[in-house]
This record gives sequence, structure tokens and C-alpha cells, in this order.
Amino acid sequence: MSTIGFIGLGIMGSPMAGHLVGAGHDVTGFDLSEDALARLRAAGGNTAGGVAEAVAGAEVVATMLPADPQVEAVMFGEDGVLANAEPGVLVIDFSTITPQTSRKVAREGAARGLRVLDAPVSGGEKGAVDAVLSIMVGGSREDFDAAAPVFAAVGKTYELVGPAGAGQVVKAANQLVVGGTYALVAEAIVLMEAAGVDAAAGLDVLAGGLAASRVLDIKRASMLARDFRPGFRVDLHHKDMGIVLDAARGAGVAVPMGALVAQLIASARAQGHGGLDHSALLKVAENLSGRDR
Amino acid sequence: MSTIGFIGLGIMGSPMAGHLVGAGHDVTGFDLSEDALARLRAAGGNTAGGVAEAVAGAEVVATMLPADPQVEAVMFGEDGVLANAEPGVLVIDFSTITPQTSRKVAREGAARGLRVLDAPVSGGEKGAVDAVLSIMVGGSREDFDAAAPVFAAVGKTYELVGPAGAGQVVKAANQLVVGGTYALVAEAIVLMEAAGVDAAAGLDVLAGGLAASRVLDIKRASMLARDFRPGFRVDLHHKDMGIVLDAARGAGVAVPMGALVAQLIASARAQGHGGLDHSALLKVAENLSGRDR
Amino acid sequence: MSTIGFIGLGIMGSPMAGHLVGAGHDVTGFDLSEDALARLRAAGGNTAGGVAEAVAGAEVVATMLPADPQVEAVMFGEDGVLANAEPGVLVIDFSTITPQTSRKVAREGAARGLRVLDAPVSGGEKGAVDAVLSIMVGGSREDFDAAAPVFAAVGKTYELVGPAGAGQVVKAANQLVVGGTYALVAEAIVLMEAAGVDAAAGLDVLAGGLAASRVLDIKRASMLARDFRPGFRVDLHHKDMGIVLDAARGAGVAVPMGALVAQLIASARAQGHGGLDHSALLKVAENLSGRDR
Amino acid sequence: MSTIGFIGLGIMGSPMAGHLVGAGHDVTGFDLSEDALARLRAAGGNTAGGVAEAVAGAEVVATMLPADPQVEAVMFGEDGVLANAEPGVLVIDFSTITPQTSRKVAREGAARGLRVLDAPVSGGEKGAVDAVLSIMVGGSREDFDAAAPVFAAVGKTYELVGPAGAGQVVKAANQLVVGGTYALVAEAIVLMEAAGVDAAAGLDVLAGGLAASRVLDIKRASMLARDFRPGFRVDLHHKDMGIVLDAARGAGVAVPMGALVAQLIASARAQGHGGLDHSALLKVAENLSGRDR
Repeated sequence: MSTIGFIGLGIMGSPMAGHLVGAGHDVTGFDLSEDALARLRAAGGNTAGGVAEAVAGAEVVATMLPADPQVEAVMFGEDGVLANAEPGVLVIDFSTITPQTSRKVAREGAARGLRVLDAPVSGGEKGAVDAVLSIMVGGSREDFDAAAPVFAAVGKTYELVGPAGAGQVVKAANQLVVGGTYALVAEAIVLMEAAGVDAAAGLDVLAGGLAASRVLDIKRASMLARDFRPGFRVDLHHKDMGIVLDAARGAGVAVPMGALVAQLIASARAQGHGGLDHSALLKVAENLSGRDR
Repeated sequence: MSTIGFIGLGIMGSPMAGHLVGAGHDVTGFDLSEDALARLRAAGGNTAGGVAEAVAGAEVVATMLPADPQVEAVMFGEDGVLANAEPGVLVIDFSTITPQTSRKVAREGAARGLRVLDAPVSGGEKGAVDAVLSIMVGGSREDFDAAAPVFAAVGKTYELVGPAGAGQVVKAANQLVVGGTYALVAEAIVLMEAAGVDAAAGLDVLAGGLAASRVLDIKRASMLARDFRPGFRVDLHHKDMGIVLDAARGAGVAVPMGALVAQLIASARAQGHGGLDHSALLKVAENLSGRDR
Repeated sequence: MSTIGFIGLGIMGSPMAGHLVGAGHDVTGFDLSEDALARLRAAGGNTAGGVAEAVAGAEVVATMLPADPQVEAVMFGEDGVLANAEPGVLVIDFSTITPQTSRKVAREGAARGLRVLDAPVSGGEKGAVDAVLSIMVGGSREDFDAAAPVFAAVGKTYELVGPAGAGQVVKAANQLVVGGTYALVAEAIVLMEAAGVDAAAGLDVLAGGLAASRVLDIKRASMLARDFRPGFRVDLHHKDMGIVLDAARGAGVAVPMGALVAQLIASARAQGHGGLDHSALLKVAENLSGRDR
Repeated sequence: MSTIGFIGLGIMGSPMAGHLVGAGHDVTGFDLSEDALARLRAAGGNTAGGVAEAVAGAEVVATMLPADPQVEAVMFGEDGVLANAEPGVLVIDFSTITPQTSRKVAREGAARGLRVLDAPVSGGEKGAVDAVLSIMVGGSREDFDAAAPVFAAVGKTYELVGPAGAGQVVKAANQLVVGGTYALVAEAIVLMEAAGVDAAAGLDVLAGGLAASRVLDIKRASMLARDFRPGFRVDLHHKDMGIVLDAARGAGVAVPMGALVAQLIASARAQGHGGLDHSALLKVAENLSGRDR
């Protein structure tokens, strides 16, 4: 069992830290929210008054933060992880951020003797609560193996997909494909409904052939019913599409499909649907075709 | 068992007509190719010297033709189906064409007392040979029920999805989603490879989560290996994307994703990949990112 | 001076036929509308009871029709131009249609000894009334020279741009660029307004630099004022974008920008703005960004 | 005449600082390049060993830097402008960066009593050398008026377009429209050439009508000749499109045209054309249509 400092006890981080406590680790957490700290104490963890204190003495530092600026602050600040973790410590960043920032953390961490993994997850709040997250990991094989007990406590599957930043790239690729699939299914629905087709029957046919997808399997009924309760919110997918485009820019590739999907999701948000499930891309498709009136 | 006139004995029509013979129907076929006619005779069918002769005395007329102009010619020509089929005959058009043309055939057919179904299929040559096509049917419930023995002889699943033209709309929606899924997966692969990620591991992760699709399941290995042997050719998907855009225009809807997919497929064709499998959209994505050199 | 048969006396054709009368030609017109015929008679022209009668004895046949189907009917019908014009007659089709249909008219016309030019125009109703149309001509140099007196009577500029169909291709290219420029300016306006910028001052800067365009020059004030009185209607530009995509398909090229523009214009129409000026693409851009509420 | 500290003496900043010297200002410059410093001394300016020294005693601080990170470093560093400029100093940032960073500089500058303007320019190296830049300014009217002598020394036109960041937004809108216009003209050229049209004659027609633009006026001949010597390089336009998308994201708007243009420019760069003029978008359009072989 390890001594773990856990920074970021929000919707995702809170249950993850709890699972680590449950697995027998000695967890000291930090978050800006007093409620979050109280939750961890109630779950049997310790809490700290700042990042440096949470990191002090830890063998593993785990972070789960909203976006690049928070990761930069927590990693590079005077009170931060790099300045305060002992050489040899394993740093696992579960945040979904740009590959560029993950690589910078790994590079500067390595310069201080830290072993850094980027480990973004998919599966959402439910996956975190149920400890069945899917974890995409960038870093070295040795560090990945060392982190296995941590991953096993919070996730169902975890895979090393390449060097530092690779976890973020795969997460970005995942969000590109997921967002794009919603956009395609949305256009298919609007086309069928506008043409007087039985869209439910039509989607059944699609789901039975080469057009089949997880999205069609689990979301076609709710999309047809216009039930857009989250699930994974448009606002979060919008943030992730920013990462997709930054990742593509960083890798020197052109992603016209991804860029269009990003704009459709930006439109969903601009139209006031940021708090709905990302399947609400259907509302943008309807709107473009004047079918929301 | 029925007396069936079958027009269009190509790659798809030939095995379909053969299955109808095998199911005990009395089939008379016509095609411009002598070889095609010989194949049907060898399979136990009869052949005719023209459309009118194939249609004469038939209770069911089935057509499987390349595109709108051929359907128009076969249906509306002087020697054609509408001028020569008896009132009450069931006309089943398996061709993939625009909903607009299918509706015109249905409307003008009805004016002459014919009962018309549009019944485009998916599953490709292999599906036709194995009699496991998926059939999307537009027309009336009564005519659909009457056609069930024919569908059962050539397909595994068949579904009534709406009135005349609805089968074509669903086929169009299917091709939009399939083409788009290839384009998304292609961008995901290029992004991962360019970023130094283990793309095979990355695609495994995608295939295990919300990004999962039939395309990922059955094509990711061949795409990573750059094995683009057809399968379903780019040229045919290009034709189908033309139908998608015509269908959208006819229904008064905007399909930005579909339109972009159509251009990427047009690009694949323009770059000389028309004879490859449609998964060769990967070559366009690579090319856009300068990774084909 | 020539004997001219003029088919299609609508908003464009009526003033054009009138200018030909005014230039001293002997004009016999035909249209399905009695009012249109009366207008031509009032202008000093003759009228006929059908295409064949209008064409009889003519040295030049001019046509100005809405779309491909009408051109096909007027050219290829039993009562039509090809069946009734004398060999050697010059056929000038001013209609905006697909290059494919223009080439077919030229080919089949040539087979009957006719000399065919495609000659789509820009400049709109006002350009027709003022006889200042811009005319893009496809055909032979010899026929173009022979048609010069006709062009001079209705247009200000006319240019031979290539063989049969070339006039239509240039018209399509023109509409692609014009529609796209509106879409770009619309996004620029929405971006500036949403960011709290003085959009009028901003557009002045754009109009003074490399972003300058005729669209910015003559439409930025009305766009900022949301004055979308036509001008050239969205419905007509929507029809023209269909021709753009057909022309691209026919030429074997991919036009992702053109395809996206076509969808944005389709959206304007689907949202109920078909009767507004095409600068109403701004309404689609606003809507996508939730700024129309 | 003013005492001016000028940070960033590159291709643009060097001639700009020289013009300020020529206008009689007392200019002290700083750059990391010794050659750049020597050039300024040769032009009659003074040079400093760091930002703080250049800023010491200045009434005006001007900056011309490559991108957001350099602006952040020069403004916010310990040796930087905000820490070392006297209260009341006018800070004019000529750099093209995101509106977000410009607003942050203005906000934090104001907190230290500085008066900040964002003032990105267009016109390129030639415009800087000839002192005919076009300058888009964000900030207060009072500060804009105070900066007029500086603007007059380096530019031909300068306009206040809104509050802090507005100059960057207008520059972004400008680059969106310029990039998009090149992409549209490129597709028009490829379409015409592929269809066998005389593209030079066709572009002449476009340039005479509603499709007219500065891009068509000054670049159509070089584009047809495939002369892509810069001019404004693809690499720089690629950087600027990143700013366009960040600006749109910051303003909460969707820009599908802008997003597609950004990908086409990213493609030009990925295909190895980063050093060519941005009119080399034509190479991407050709490539997409298989016409570069």
C-alpha cells in the first residue's frame, strides 16, 4: 500500500480518492472546497491545507483537475507538486488537458527526478463512482507498471498507449470520434424525420449494420425522445474539443471533421445547451434545418 | 410461389435472382450483358430479350440497377416496366437511388395500378451472395407484407421504414453515418500516429468505450495495416453521397457533416483511390496532414 | 438585325427580350404566362403559341429558363428547339443550369446542325432591366462572335470562357465565391459583435485591406443594419449551390469550402429566409452562435 | 516627441523602431538578437541590455513580439514591462496575439497605473518598411489619441475599434476573411481548370462582379502561375488562425467557415508549404482534387 497525495477532489476526484482509501492506501487530499475535504475525511482519508502539505511524504501524487491552467498552477506553483515532491515520487495526472501541457509536466518533473504519467479517464461521474473508469496512460512502461495498483483501484481498464502526452492524445481522439458520431447520428435523425420516415425504425436498421455504434446503441432512444439529461455535458465536450484542436495543432495534422464537430458543439453551447447531455447536438442539427420552431 | 421478372443481373442482381430461383419462384431475367443472362439460365431461371418481355405475365417485378438514369429508363421507357406490367403487379426496386426518383416511380406506378416498393439494400456483394442483405423498405404495409417472401429469399433483415422513398432515405442516412465514421476514425488514426502514440493500443481503447462502432470493430486492423482491398468501393460510396446530398436537399435540411464527408470521399476518388475500399478515407486524411510522403 | 425566337419571358427574360426589340431585332417570344406575352407585345415584339412556333424561321433562338428540367423540356421536347430550329441557327441559352446539361444541349444541338452557346448571366433583375448584365459564354469563338450583337443588346460585358458548358462552370465558380464571401463576412460580424467590438469600425478596417471585397463594399452597411431585402434571394443562391456541387462532381473535384457554404445557404432557406437577400447568411451565423434570441 | 522603449526588433519591429527614430522620437530598443540591436543603433536609436532597461524612463513602451508566450514573458516577467514601467506610461502592443492575452495585459497594466493599447497591424514586412501599416486599436479613446503620433510614424491608417482586446478581434476577423477568400478562390480555380475552362478569363469575370475582392485583384495572376513566393507566409497565417479560433471560443461563437479555413491552412503547412505565400492554399485545393500529380 502507498502513501498518496491527491489534489483535486471534485465530482471525479472525490470518489476516486475514496476508492483509493477503500483499497487500503494512506490518502491525504487537498481541494479548495471545504466540503470536498470533509467528504474525504468522512471516507477515511486525511486532508491537507495546501498542495505542498498533501505532497509531503507521499510516494504517489495523484491529480484530477479541470483544465490546463489548474494543472499548471498545481504542478509549477511555489506551493506546487514539482517544488515539493521527493525525487522518485510517481505523479499520476488524471486530468484531461492538452498533450503539450502533459509533456511539459513530464519533462520538468523528470528534471526534478519525478516519474510522471498522464492518465486521463473516460466513463464520467458514474464511472468514477463505480470505479470502472477507462484510463489512457502516457509515460514509461516501468512507471505504468508501478501505477497499476492505483489504476486498479479506480478503473476497470487501463492501457499504456505511448510516451508522455500519449494518454491525452488518445483521450482527444476518443472525444473527436464520440462528438463526431453524435453529430452524424443527429443529421441522420433530422434527415429521416424531415423526409417523413419512421426514424425509430430507420435507426434500428442503422444500428444493425455497418453504421452501428455504441452511441446508437445506448442513445438513440433518448435522442428520439429529446431527453437530453446528462450524462456528459456539452460544456465539458466543448472544453475537450478545444484540446482536440490543440492536440492536432501540436501534432501538425489537419482534422477537418474534428474542426467542424468542435464548431457544432460550440454552437450547442452558444445556443444555451451547455448543461445538457452532449447528445443535444441533435438540437443544433434541428435548428440548422429550421425544425426547432 | 410467384412469377417474377428481374431486371438488372449485375454483381448484386445476379445472386439475388439466383436465390429467388432457389426459393422456387419462376424467374425471368433481363440484362444488357449476355454473360449475365447465361448465368441466370445456368441457375435455372429464364431470360428475356428486353424489359417488356421480362415483365410480361409477371406477378412481381424486381429491379436492381446502378443509378437514377437506369431506373428512369427501365421504369418509364416505352419498353419499360410501367408501360408493360399488368395492373396489380408488385414492383420492388432494390436499386440505391434518390428518394425523389423512388417517389416518382411510386406515384406514376400507382397511376397505372402498380404497387411499388423502394427497397435498397446494404451488405454488399457478399451479402447478396450469402442472401443476408439488410433491406430498407418504403411503401405501404400491405405491399411490404406481400413482398415478404421475396425479401426473405435474398435478405436476413427487412424493415418497413415509411412511405414511398423512405427506404432510400434510410439508406442515405446509413451511408452518411458510415462514411462519416470512417472519416472520424481516419482523423483519429492520423492524430495518434503523428503524435507518436501507439495507434493500435489507442484504437483498442476507443473500441472499448463510447467511441465504439462496427467500423472500429471490423476495420481498425486493416486500416492500421493500410490494407484497402474492397469491400465496398470508394466509387460506390461517392455515388451514394450524391444521393445523401440530393435527399437532404429534397427534404429541406442542412447536413454540414454529410457535406464534408461527401467532399472527403470525392477527394479519395479524385486522388485515384476510387477502386479501393471506402476505409481508404484514411489516405485522404494522411494526405491532408502531409503524412503520405 | 436578326430574327430571334425568345423562350422564357420571366423577370429576367422579359426585359432582355425588350432590349432586343429595342435594338431593332425581330423578336418572337413564348412563355406560359399570358401576362408575359402581353408585355412583349406592348414592347413591340411578336408572340407565339408555343416553342415550335417561336423558333420557326428564327436565325437566333434565345432561352432564359429557371432550371435544368425546363431547359431539357424546351430543348428536347417534341415541340422543342432542337426538333424545330433550322440547321445553322444560333441557340443562346441564358439560363443558369448545370454544365452537364449545357454540354448535352450543345452536343445534341450540334448533331442537328445547330450552333449552341451557354451564356449564363450575373447582375440580377436590375442588370437585366438596365441591360448591363455580365455574360459568361461557353462555346466556339465563331459562334461567340456571331452572338455579339445579341449580347451587346442585353449586357455590358461578355466573355468567352471556354467550350460548351464553360459559361456555366464560371457562373458556378462565381456563386461559390460570392456565397462563401457572405458566409465569411457573416462570421466576422458575429465574432466582432460578440466580443464587444465596434463592428462598423472593424468592417471599415477590413474593407481597407487584403480582406476587401465587393460584398464588403456594397453590403456591409445593410448587413450591420439587418436589412435583408433582396437583391438576390437565398432561394436562388440555394439553387445555384446545387449547380456548384453538381459541377464539382462532374469535374471530379472536391470543394469542401463550397460544400459548407451550400449547407449554410440550405440552412438559411430551411430557417425560413428563402425570400431574403443572400446576405441573410448573417442570420444563420447569428443563430449558430445563439445571438438571435 | 517622446521617449520610447521598443521591445522586439524583428522583421516588423526593426523598421517600425527606425521610423520612430526618423520621426524624432528618442527610442531605446531591446531584442535578443545582437544584429537587431546593431541595426537600431545604425538607424540612430539607443539599445538596452534588457526589457527593464529599455523601459526605464520611457513615456511610451512599444512591443512587437511573435506570439502570446513572448508577450506574457515581456509584460509579466520580473524584468518585464509591468514591473518596471512608470505609472502613466502608454504601453502599445503591436503584436498579433489572442484577445484574451491582450485583455489580461490591459487589466494588469491598469492595476499598475499603465495605459495599455492592443494595436495589431496588417500590411506585412513591406508595410512596415514603407510605414504604411494598417493598425487596429483596442483601448480607450484618450489613450488612442495620445498614441496617434506613434501610429502616424509607422502606419497609414489606424482606427480605434473598441475596448481592450478589440484590436486583436478585428485582426482575427481580418485573417479569417482573408484566409477564407484564398480558399474560395482556390476552389474556383481548381473547378474551372478541371472542367476545361479558361481560368484566366473566368477569374477576370469574377473580378468584375460581386465575387470581386482584393485577393482576386492582386493575386489571381500569381496564383494561376503557381508563383507562391511570399508575401505573407502560410506559417504566419496558421498561427493567426489559431488566434481566430481562440478568439471565437473566448467570445462564445461558432465559426464553421473559419474552422474549415484553419484546417486547410494547417494542411498547407503539414504538406510542407509553410514557407510559401498563403495563396498556396491553392496547392491544398489541387491536392484534394488529385490535380497535383
